[in-house]
Amino acid sequence: MFPNLLLKRAYLTPERTALRFGEEAWTFQQLYNEANEFAEKLHAKGIQPGMRIAILSSSNAELVIAIHGCLQLGCELVMLNERLSEVELNYQLHDSKPNILLVDNYEREINYNQRFSFHDIHNNKRKVYAMERDWPKSRTISIMYTSGTTGSPKGVRQSLENHAMNATGSALHLGIHPDDCWLCVVPLFHISGFSILMRSVLYGMTVSLHTKFDPEKVVDEILEGAATRMSLVAVMLQRIVSVLENRNQYFPDSFQSILVGGGPVPLSYLERAIERNIPVLQTYGMTETASQTTTLSSEDAIRKLGSSGKPLFFADVRIDGEEKMGEICIKGPHVTKGYIGAAESKKPLLNGWLHTGDIGYLDEEGYLFVVDRRSDLIISGGENIYPAELEQALVKHPAVVEAGVTGRQDDKWGQIPIAFVVVKELVSIEELAAFMKTQIASYKLPKEYYFIEELPRNGANKLVRRELLNLI
Amino acid sequence: MFPNLLLKRAYLTPERTALRFGEEAWTFQQLYNEANEFAEKLHAKGIQPGMRIAILSSSNAELVIAIHGCLQLGCELVMLNERLSEVELNYQLHDSKPNILLVDNYEREINYNQRFSFHDIHNNKRKVYAMERDWPKSRTISIMYTSGTTGSPKGVRQSLENHAMNATGSALHLGIHPDDCWLCVVPLFHISGFSILMRSVLYGMTVSLHTKFDPEKVVDEILEGAATRMSLVAVMLQRIVSVLENRNQYFPDSFQSILVGGGPVPLSYLERAIERNIPVLQTYGMTETASQTTTLSSEDAIRKLGSSGKPLFFADVRIDGEEKMGEICIKGPHVTKGYIGAAESKKPLLNGWLHTGDIGYLDEEGYLFVVDRRSDLIISGGENIYPAELEQALVKHPAVVEAGVTGRQDDKWGQIPIAFVVVKELVSIEELAAFMKTQIASYKLPKEYYFIEELPRNGANKLVRRELLNLI
Repeated sequence: MFPNLLLKRAYLTPERTALRFGEEAWTFQQLYNEANEFAEKLHAKGIQPGMRIAILSSSNAELVIAIHGCLQLGCELVMLNERLSEVELNYQLHDSKPNILLVDNYEREINYNQRFSFHDIHNNKRKVYAMERDWPKSRTISIMYTSGTTGSPKGVRQSLENHAMNATGSALHLGIHPDDCWLCVVPLFHISGFSILMRSVLYGMTVSLHTKFDPEKVVDEILEGAATRMSLVAVMLQRIVSVLENRNQYFPDSFQSILVGGGPVPLSYLERAIERNIPVLQTYGMTETASQTTTLSSEDAIRKLGSSGKPLFFADVRIDGEEKMGEICIKGPHVTKGYIGAAESKKPLLNGWLHTGDIGYLDEEGYLFVVDRRSDLIISGGENIYPAELEQALVKHPAVVEAGVTGRQDDKWGQIPIAFVVVKELVSIEELAAFMKTQIASYKLPKEYYFIEELPRNGANKLVRRELLNLI
Repeated sequence: MFPNLLLKRAYLTPERTALRFGEEAWTFQQLYNEANEFAEKLHAKGIQPGMRIAILSSSNAELVIAIHGCLQLGCELVMLNERLSEVELNYQLHDSKPNILLVDNYEREINYNQRFSFHDIHNNKRKVYAMERDWPKSRTISIMYTSGTTGSPKGVRQSLENHAMNATGSALHLGIHPDDCWLCVVPLFHISGFSILMRSVLYGMTVSLHTKFDPEKVVDEILEGAATRMSLVAVMLQRIVSVLENRNQYFPDSFQSILVGGGPVPLSYLERAIERNIPVLQTYGMTETASQTTTLSSEDAIRKLGSSGKPLFFADVRIDGEEKMGEICIKGPHVTKGYIGAAESKKPLLNGWLHTGDIGYLDEEGYLFVVDRRSDLIISGGENIYPAELEQALVKHPAVVEAGVTGRQDDKWGQIPIAFVVVKELVSIEELAAFMKTQIASYKLPKEYYFIEELPRNGANKLVRRELLNLI
């Protein structure tokens, strides 16, 4: 058993600031009180401990209160990505079958037989539930969908132990200070953002939450000394560096670290960031490991530019394969115990190790270098895009016989998805693009379409995506 | 499984300083290399993984290397208190039956059929053993003897999970920084010192080890900025405060915290310490909880003077009894799973809770105040003295019929033990004192003896020690 996270934190440091959002702020005691009230109102709606609740919301204080409220009641969360298309969201709802869906507002284009807005819950009466002082370590806290190489999104369980051991391992790696404040500009429905909420309650640390990433505002807040840590993806880092360069300003020495994950950071960004006194800690993490597995220590930031560092204390990494370079495998108490829904029977571990599909190597000192994410995975602006998912959507169009998607390097986004289609009848690129918009979140849409005669295939007749770009 | 602590740390931060002792220093890589060499030499002596090794040594670098060497080989340690008498040490050896006894030098007045000095091991050849990358969480790392109210010392198992969860909980409570250095002037055979070694490998933190407590040297080292944290008992704190007062000096702001445990700290010490810019964190801990259970946060140091604070994140405390004040009970992953030897069958937990025998209360904000240690426990200069142990030694003298021992308040030591004896024939105080010297460590010896007619007993004919002082 581990303690009920927010209950324990509110007992330990009730007066410390838990959350800042806009002009408002909540202490841990206030956050607990509001979460508890939310839990009682959910309970009055018939929601019982152990039920599953899906949430679709942008990042705001109401979402933080709703998350903690659901957890207080003993429910598990399905964190829905607000950038997904209706088709994609329906798949996840159909797969996870939550008891209810909570949305931040009724404008959301998604239907569900048990759908409530935060406002609906707040307007309800209260009903006392059985407060739990301890939670089982194996309890599922959150579920997030991620696709494998097959392209079918799988709901990944993140347990209390996953989150708690990741957060403590991260503290040992990065250090923590009672005055820390973590600026959250990454989405709370992603593990990058959700893990900040978990660290907050475990460390007794303030979260400064922004709904949208505005690099000018971020720089202002940091220059004021109001935030000491942050998580970013590479494309955001570059925009912050540009703001500092334009203003000819530097990060203050009191600022501790930026975790940069979601794919490799170009060396030129890192060097410009260091020039601006930004302590960049490149990180390798994923949904299945409840955030970080490896992080480059501050003392190695320059000497090992481009590396994702070494594992957190309780995590272990090895390379599978006969060569120096091979598949990155991960072990530790932060690794998911499994999936829900259609993928429930799939075992995430092989002999105790998570096989990530990512390719990398450990150098002679044991630093991890990630060379390629999951063979065919495209990472665009820190978001994962699975070619198979786009290909499946393309072939739904009546004119398309088969399709191949791959990523192309892009200065701004890291990579962008490019589609190749074999058609049986005439169709315009505009029509294909319009069709895809109804199927797929806009950030995942192919940026270019090419008509080809046939897909490149190997001896086993499998699509060889890395050869697609040669066809242009 | 958790990682092999020192192996993992040497991999993560090989070049950081692990240990300073006198003029010498070791990086984590160097410490691992020497520990590994020690393990190979132990193995060449026939020592196998899983064996039990008792160690009797003062605090020095060789002891640190020996401790890590034994752990690398997969052995469990019995940490012997070098201040004990031969009779007491023999009891612990007889009870724990270690495969070998290691001593720092041959001057030690203790025999054992398998006794080796550190020097003997260093002179041996090497033999490769099977290096373990992971250790089971339940593995016993260390065993320390402590007495209950019955007075028979019991060997307490401290597992890998106990140590690791205590160290991580402490990090969340106190904060940690990559540049921290913990000054160790408390004995390594005590959990107060041993836990500093555990924190060192988990945090990647330097330990500055002193064999003897010299308050002038401690103050010098801290004023130089060479140490940021420290553990002390109240009597040592007072000596440090006196040095600062005599020199009219103050601790630098870069110094982070002093954990003060081993019994209540008089308010006057705390106030004088705060006056000298010493961040005192009063702590409640014990052998059975692998060090701290509660610690007063820095932000409450003044407002809650005299309290031992709130539990570490993963620890839980409740008061057993119908009144506000009652027996302090503890739960969490840092609590011992049990005993060895004669006490092996005793269960430390009752319905999941460790019943400490200590008396205290939680105030309206949930801060723990320890009022009395284990009913009859005497704490003198931070050392535990169990009246029953002294009484059992006293009645071994042929003239003594029965005996009662209790503590009296003392400005310097906190408490001192006072003996009351009922005799059947004439005996001098000098003779009793000389006899006790052969039985009991000198720091535990009664400071005064009184001859009385009969012991105060209650209706159940049990000795009522708290009434003894009324007989003077």
